[in-house]
Amino acid sequence: MSLLVTGSIGIDTINTPADSRKDCLGGSSIYFSMAASFFAPVRFVGVIGDDCPFDLQETFAGRDVDLTGLEERAGSKTFRWAGTYHGDMNQRTTDSCELNVLAEAPPKVPDVYRDSKFVFLANTTPALQLELLGQVDEPAFVAADTMNLWITDHRADLDKLLKKIDCLVLNDEEAKMLADKENLVKASELILKMGPGVVIIKKGEAGSLMAAGDDKFILPAFPAKQVIDPTGAGDSFAGGFMGYLAQQDSTNTRTLKKAIAYGTVVASFTIADFSLEGLTSTNINKINERLNTLKEMTSF
Amino acid sequence: MSLLVTGSIGIDTINTPADSRKDCLGGSSIYFSMAASFFAPVRFVGVIGDDCPFDLQETFAGRDVDLTGLEERAGSKTFRWAGTYHGDMNQRTTDSCELNVLAEAPPKVPDVYRDSKFVFLANTTPALQLELLGQVDEPAFVAADTMNLWITDHRADLDKLLKKIDCLVLNDEEAKMLADKENLVKASELILKMGPGVVIIKKGEAGSLMAAGDDKFILPAFPAKQVIDPTGAGDSFAGGFMGYLAQQDSTNTRTLKKAIAYGTVVASFTIADFSLEGLTSTNINKINERLNTLKEMTSF
Repeated sequence: MSLLVTGSIGIDTINTPADSRKDCLGGSSIYFSMAASFFAPVRFVGVIGDDCPFDLQETFAGRDVDLTGLEERAGSKTFRWAGTYHGDMNQRTTDSCELNVLAEAPPKVPDVYRDSKFVFLANTTPALQLELLGQVDEPAFVAADTMNLWITDHRADLDKLLKKIDCLVLNDEEAKMLADKENLVKASELILKMGPGVVIIKKGEAGSLMAAGDDKFILPAFPAKQVIDPTGAGDSFAGGFMGYLAQQDSTNTRTLKKAIAYGTVVASFTIADFSLEGLTSTNINKINERLNTLKEMTSF
Repeated sequence: MSLLVTGSIGIDTINTPADSRKDCLGGSSIYFSMAASFFAPVRFVGVIGDDCPFDLQETFAGRDVDLTGLEERAGSKTFRWAGTYHGDMNQRTTDSCELNVLAEAPPKVPDVYRDSKFVFLANTTPALQLELLGQVDEPAFVAADTMNLWITDHRADLDKLLKKIDCLVLNDEEAKMLADKENLVKASELILKMGPGVVIIKKGEAGSLMAAGDDKFILPAFPAKQVIDPTGAGDSFAGGFMGYLAQQDSTNTRTLKKAIAYGTVVASFTIADFSLEGLTSTNINKINERLNTLKEMTSF
């Protein structure tokens, strides 16, 4: 099934206790698309400036990622982000963030994408997420990401968005903030009442919690021996998750659970190297092998 | 199979953001024994002063806990601990700690316990754990708990202990400290090289990680809707774990995994109320029901 993603394309500079990388390719839609493309064809929507040093056609060469929705805007500058990870990589600080083209008019969803069935709205203002969603005719399953800033400062728009999507993906701190509840189980249930039928709370190293109607699913993160760069882990998780749903053309509980397991595994490849290198050096066979290992490791 | 536990008996005072309790029954061997008694007969070793306000015969009435090894020492005072939990209960501070009788000579392991096959040495100095272990003839499976203070200040004794036990149970911060490694997977492998064939790292709300030879097992904590008092969660986990192993008289990987799941479930009852109330108000049927729920929640 067709899978549409809208999100950012970034030029990232990343510092970790062990190493650093300057001006490497990043952004939510980039990680998402690379991760999802292991499972289903991806329709990409995003905008860069004319300064972008990356050839995205080349980045996604040989992968089923349709770049019709990629806009290169003359006279604009590409989004830039720089961050530093600390200690055991569970904490990061943003060193600089230049929105650049992301602060301008959003890209348009191409007409040929209007019939998309699975849609992922990566993190941006909820108003913009709503606008992008309005350009898809009859989506079957829409998931969105959000962040603390929209929860506190754009709440009316976010509430509107929550009534129009099927699944919200957010991290533990955001879930506590959105539900105004410290307990994550209760928070997930309160968020379900705000609209989406499925809520996925990402807890980093501690894994994830999904609430879907009365069903709950909990899965630890894959126990990584080495974390090189956690950037893009959340977007890769979402990519693996949505990619598998689109491949199966199903969103029943059983499929949702397996999709979360795939998201978990794909994210574990992302964090094993800088930028996209962890993802580009794996393949669906290695992903399936690690999925089986994860299954074995969590079964009793 | 016979299961021996050595550990503390305490008079606890507990403060949480919601409520507090003064002078309630606590201590590692108490929580452990109550948890383990759902699965196997327990042989208890511990010491109290003559000021102890609790009748332990009554506490364990109707449960298969042998108190032959309980010593009430005239002229001594019972161990006391007071602590406060903060925020979402993941952090606690010790308000006061009076070792009292725990700082005196240890209790003796009764001769009738010498043939015990499963042994749990709850947290105390490694020298004392070694001394207690020396009073058991031919144990089949010995597990021990430890803490930061012994890792830093009693390392030689701890190293000796690690060579004599089959399983070390410790929390994530202790594991990082013992292995001098931030990554828990690597830490678990390094600890295996120090002696025990099985290492279990408890990560609180994030669940647990077991390494046993080349096998790994990861399990999230049971997603609790309400945490009232986390005191004793770790000892209850150990009790459920060791109780199930003793019941099955087996320590193969499959049994170890299921034992960790039982430990996880039993601990989830402990934290649902103050002191032993969460454990005394449940039963093996409810425990089995929750084990099935946990299995369902983690399967994909």
